[in-house]
Amino acid sequence: MTRTILRGYASDNTAGATAEVLAAMSEASAGLAAPYGTDDLSRSVVAQFEDVFERPVDVFPVGSGSAANGIALAALTPPWGAILAHPSSHITVDEAGAPEFFTAGAKFVHVDGTDSTIDADALAAAVTRRRGDVHSVQPSVVSITQATETGSVYSLDHLRTLADIAHDAGLRVHMDGARFANALVTLGVSPAEMTWRLGVDILSFGATKNGTMTADAIVSFDPSLATELSYRHKRGGQLTAKMRFQTAQLGAYLRDDLWLATARQANAMAQRLRAGLAEAPGVDVLGDPGANILFCRFPDGLIRTLQDQGYTFYSDRWEPGVVRLVTSFAHRTEDIDDLLDAVRAFTGTH
Amino acid sequence: MTRTILRGYASDNTAGATAEVLAAMSEASAGLAAPYGTDDLSRSVVAQFEDVFERPVDVFPVGSGSAANGIALAALTPPWGAILAHPSSHITVDEAGAPEFFTAGAKFVHVDGTDSTIDADALAAAVTRRRGDVHSVQPSVVSITQATETGSVYSLDHLRTLADIAHDAGLRVHMDGARFANALVTLGVSPAEMTWRLGVDILSFGATKNGTMTADAIVSFDPSLATELSYRHKRGGQLTAKMRFQTAQLGAYLRDDLWLATARQANAMAQRLRAGLAEAPGVDVLGDPGANILFCRFPDGLIRTLQDQGYTFYSDRWEPGVVRLVTSFAHRTEDIDDLLDAVRAFTGTH
Amino acid sequence: MTRTILRGYASDNTAGATAEVLAAMSEASAGLAAPYGTDDLSRSVVAQFEDVFERPVDVFPVGSGSAANGIALAALTPPWGAILAHPSSHITVDEAGAPEFFTAGAKFVHVDGTDSTIDADALAAAVTRRRGDVHSVQPSVVSITQATETGSVYSLDHLRTLADIAHDAGLRVHMDGARFANALVTLGVSPAEMTWRLGVDILSFGATKNGTMTADAIVSFDPSLATELSYRHKRGGQLTAKMRFQTAQLGAYLRDDLWLATARQANAMAQRLRAGLAEAPGVDVLGDPGANILFCRFPDGLIRTLQDQGYTFYSDRWEPGVVRLVTSFAHRTEDIDDLLDAVRAFTGTH
Amino acid sequence: MTRTILRGYASDNTAGATAEVLAAMSEASAGLAAPYGTDDLSRSVVAQFEDVFERPVDVFPVGSGSAANGIALAALTPPWGAILAHPSSHITVDEAGAPEFFTAGAKFVHVDGTDSTIDADALAAAVTRRRGDVHSVQPSVVSITQATETGSVYSLDHLRTLADIAHDAGLRVHMDGARFANALVTLGVSPAEMTWRLGVDILSFGATKNGTMTADAIVSFDPSLATELSYRHKRGGQLTAKMRFQTAQLGAYLRDDLWLATARQANAMAQRLRAGLAEAPGVDVLGDPGANILFCRFPDGLIRTLQDQGYTFYSDRWEPGVVRLVTSFAHRTEDIDDLLDAVRAFTGTH
Repeated sequence: MTRTILRGYASDNTAGATAEVLAAMSEASAGLAAPYGTDDLSRSVVAQFEDVFERPVDVFPVGSGSAANGIALAALTPPWGAILAHPSSHITVDEAGAPEFFTAGAKFVHVDGTDSTIDADALAAAVTRRRGDVHSVQPSVVSITQATETGSVYSLDHLRTLADIAHDAGLRVHMDGARFANALVTLGVSPAEMTWRLGVDILSFGATKNGTMTADAIVSFDPSLATELSYRHKRGGQLTAKMRFQTAQLGAYLRDDLWLATARQANAMAQRLRAGLAEAPGVDVLGDPGANILFCRFPDGLIRTLQDQGYTFYSDRWEPGVVRLVTSFAHRTEDIDDLLDAVRAFTGTH
Repeated sequence: MTRTILRGYASDNTAGATAEVLAAMSEASAGLAAPYGTDDLSRSVVAQFEDVFERPVDVFPVGSGSAANGIALAALTPPWGAILAHPSSHITVDEAGAPEFFTAGAKFVHVDGTDSTIDADALAAAVTRRRGDVHSVQPSVVSITQATETGSVYSLDHLRTLADIAHDAGLRVHMDGARFANALVTLGVSPAEMTWRLGVDILSFGATKNGTMTADAIVSFDPSLATELSYRHKRGGQLTAKMRFQTAQLGAYLRDDLWLATARQANAMAQRLRAGLAEAPGVDVLGDPGANILFCRFPDGLIRTLQDQGYTFYSDRWEPGVVRLVTSFAHRTEDIDDLLDAVRAFTGTH
Repeated sequence: MTRTILRGYASDNTAGATAEVLAAMSEASAGLAAPYGTDDLSRSVVAQFEDVFERPVDVFPVGSGSAANGIALAALTPPWGAILAHPSSHITVDEAGAPEFFTAGAKFVHVDGTDSTIDADALAAAVTRRRGDVHSVQPSVVSITQATETGSVYSLDHLRTLADIAHDAGLRVHMDGARFANALVTLGVSPAEMTWRLGVDILSFGATKNGTMTADAIVSFDPSLATELSYRHKRGGQLTAKMRFQTAQLGAYLRDDLWLATARQANAMAQRLRAGLAEAPGVDVLGDPGANILFCRFPDGLIRTLQDQGYTFYSDRWEPGVVRLVTSFAHRTEDIDDLLDAVRAFTGTH
Repeated sequence: MTRTILRGYASDNTAGATAEVLAAMSEASAGLAAPYGTDDLSRSVVAQFEDVFERPVDVFPVGSGSAANGIALAALTPPWGAILAHPSSHITVDEAGAPEFFTAGAKFVHVDGTDSTIDADALAAAVTRRRGDVHSVQPSVVSITQATETGSVYSLDHLRTLADIAHDAGLRVHMDGARFANALVTLGVSPAEMTWRLGVDILSFGATKNGTMTADAIVSFDPSLATELSYRHKRGGQLTAKMRFQTAQLGAYLRDDLWLATARQANAMAQRLRAGLAEAPGVDVLGDPGANILFCRFPDGLIRTLQDQGYTFYSDRWEPGVVRLVTSFAHRTEDIDDLLDAVRAFTGTH
């Protein structure tokens, strides 16, 4: 069968699921199984997570990153708390107030920094601002997106510095890992090193963008939060009856390092794209894609020409001419080369 | 391949998914697709729902019945409202306060009645209780479970009476349809007849128990609620990125009346069980299973004997000796007969 | 000046304020003072509370009992908690869901008992119901109204038994003391004996009904709750700028045992009423007024006759003919005798 | 009796109450009165408000500006709404998240502008930002503080422009009138002109800073919001039993234009202060006090010298040397002159 060339670069959430995840769903469907995550498969997936993170963890499968973030944050801040986050972070600009909903009204306080990352000095100033002043919301949790919404990747040192600042001031640390695997393979470190070993309290473990269908997970490294998380998870409508269909996805995702392989594929395709576009006359590659997101400035006419040929990507959100190209595990070399050919065809004749 | 006999009767949520649903997931996984329900497949599934309900509807896929109920109720009651519901209804006893969470603190006011159904006279008294009294929560929505938590099925007349009482008093009507299909085939009526034609404003359309994996849906018959529902759905963490994996399930579920076939199978198996058990000496069948839930009183020793053989079912929640047996679409004649054989073996020797 | 006879028995909240409270307001108004309770007067009132309760306490003045109850309960239950309370308690029937609002959606679970008091056995069953079951709200706090909404007064033994049951099961204990002083003088015990010594964690200290104008208070006996209470108090709109005008009321209320004197007066007037009505032909006195609330059954025509003469009281909420008469510190002997004369005039001629 | 010179300029909330307000409290205390604002006095105060605003209004007395703002905003935005407000506005920086609490999690979106006022162009851009995008909170209400937190006063034209922008885009308009009277007398316009005639939907009518003790009010100009406001008011713990003690304050405050007189006095004292300080060598007066708040830069040593003499004011929140001086109705000519003498004594010798 001929494989259709993929021409979509709008987001990694447009990809399907891996074959392994699909197969696991079929397997999970056979016979009967206990509901609400009390089945054997679901239990075994927790063990897989513990293996991956090299320690006991509490795992709560969810259907979306918004739910993961909302429930995690609710366990890390009181309603009168401030959530310190980058002004461009997904939780504050793209979730229609889901964190405010789950936390019963906590407030975002933005902490800026370059490349969508939180600046350490700015954080140091923010964590103690109006502490103990009953007229002000209280800094309670720092939320760090790794990789960030624009594809940059925090170094371990950067993360550790932020986590230390937070913990020294009595705050908790949340990591929004919608593209956790992409960051992990970029840094070439272990899941433990990028999370609890440097101070992350709860991780929103993103899997959907990287190969599952309807399953992400909250991974908590603080056992004292487990009970609260379990009730917030249930109450938030995330404790599904046929939980095994979500844990099956997560199990397949983690098995044999599939998740790292898919993330490497996505990142490699971004690098291939970058290398090709860097040589195209008139195209400016804007920085290096830390993970699987590439920003470029396209010459006049190229955006429209590509869109007319069926390529999709975002181009209207930043400066004129600037486009964002997101690759996923589903993209292969031939897809990337197809796009590069189209760019070359345009630039060669203009 | 030899099919393994199913011995689980604890709940219909222990069943897997239908083959058609699994196949649809695989198909949906091919290629790329727009996220958040803006893809073609998701749009076409809305059309399927409109076909099924014979009118325009707003459809919001969700990952659990708790989410469906919580979001639906939040759109139907202000925070100072009272949700009128049967004291045994799932929303008030088995969701850890999810409706209170989604509604920002509405309050349940219980309206009793036989067979887990709301009594019309009791409802008539409740809908006007302390209306306009600022010191009291205000009756705002009636929530009706069809089929009920104990498997009974409201007649159309009963439903219409309740809906009329509610609407006449200015209240809204919610239907918790966790076992909607089972009730539908019991009554032999159309989806339209059992919902909007008699006054249901929003339906929690249960599909998981009857053949899908991770997909139920909110179906709204009031277009004026669509905007509010869409924000509550997003904010509640239910607007998933790869929504097509949920709509694919719902599409397969509805296609060619699969959902009615699976519901008929579940109900038929309950009837077969009932007929068999009615003839077993010492077994008291308690009422007729309206849908796919059967209550019986077992003689001393039978519960333990069956459990020792691997049969599972609830027996500790009602009177001593009373068991609940729930069948699903996954059960087949041979499963039922296997259980009946085991019962006969016991009763024949005692 | 001729004093006008008071003919209102609808509620003790219809009374004005004591002369001492009014004088304290005038005094507090002189000069400037630091806002938000940081002024000297406000600090001294905390010391008065500590004197009264014979231990360090945290005091948060509020403008209403609903606010006191809502904020106190929010500090004593998580949103997924159950508030165990008598089905007739004010917090569940007369606050339009204020506790649900302040707690972000906790749920009332009613525990019945005679004379508006919680039955110990019923409570013992309720505190462990579905503990640890993630599908159910979790018993978290018992709320006890002392004196109750119908004027009955818990004995110290009864209170201690309930508090022990709660604490043994890990629950917290809240006391709604809207008529705290009335109960205190009925029992003839100390504030310490009726609260923290037997296990009350937070008291809603009612003062308005017994002599203040716009001031009640949350009194917390658990220092670990102080920070949370201070933010909930602020966030709930109860940290007023000119707090000294509320603390001035509370200070005058507590000074020289004024509050006990006013409560004794209210209770004595209820007893005088009871004694007089007990002798009136055709009038049935229903029980002894534990505090300052008396229930009677009036003969045909008496209710209407009294109302026509300007007497006010509730008569339509219980059985036909049953009336509730509430006395306050503002009632004097001549008021009571005036009512008794009117009753005698009626019964003498019928 | 010698009047003590007032040396406090920290805030107008340090003043006491007017004699008229105190007298009204005493009067209100006589006899019995119906509770919860159903008494004659409370009804008559609504009529006073209607007289002042020259139209029917709904009035909800509250105990604090935070409560007024929280309840008003909750009626003007859904939980998924954005509240557009100046980044320095009290509601977003000084209420510990009270608006987020009352609105069940709405989000502030800051709209900047000079002198603590919202810039019209910035507002025009903000009102349509991401309208209809389900991933974003939705612009729902603009909150304008008049006078602002730094004492500046919006012109009627400025207010009208903002209100028009808001209404044209389908948003509601809230006015935080903590210093409403001060702004009114500065502009020399009528209450109607500064509110509903130019588009204000709900006004937080501040009275405490300008002469009452424990009473502010929500004044709603949109009858369709009355029912919702009444339940939010009750549920928020603001429907007090002895409401007449709050309405008595408001009645006295409005009677015979007392409130305008007190505001004029406060403003005049700020002007006198300004005139005197403008002539003091080394003192820089920073702008004109629109209402009753004056900012100055003091020469080295003056701040400390004044504080040592018992003067109080804020000096640590802006640039070094910059102080804020707030006058109130309680300040008189001799108070101001006393401060000016102290400044002159310092500057004359340095």
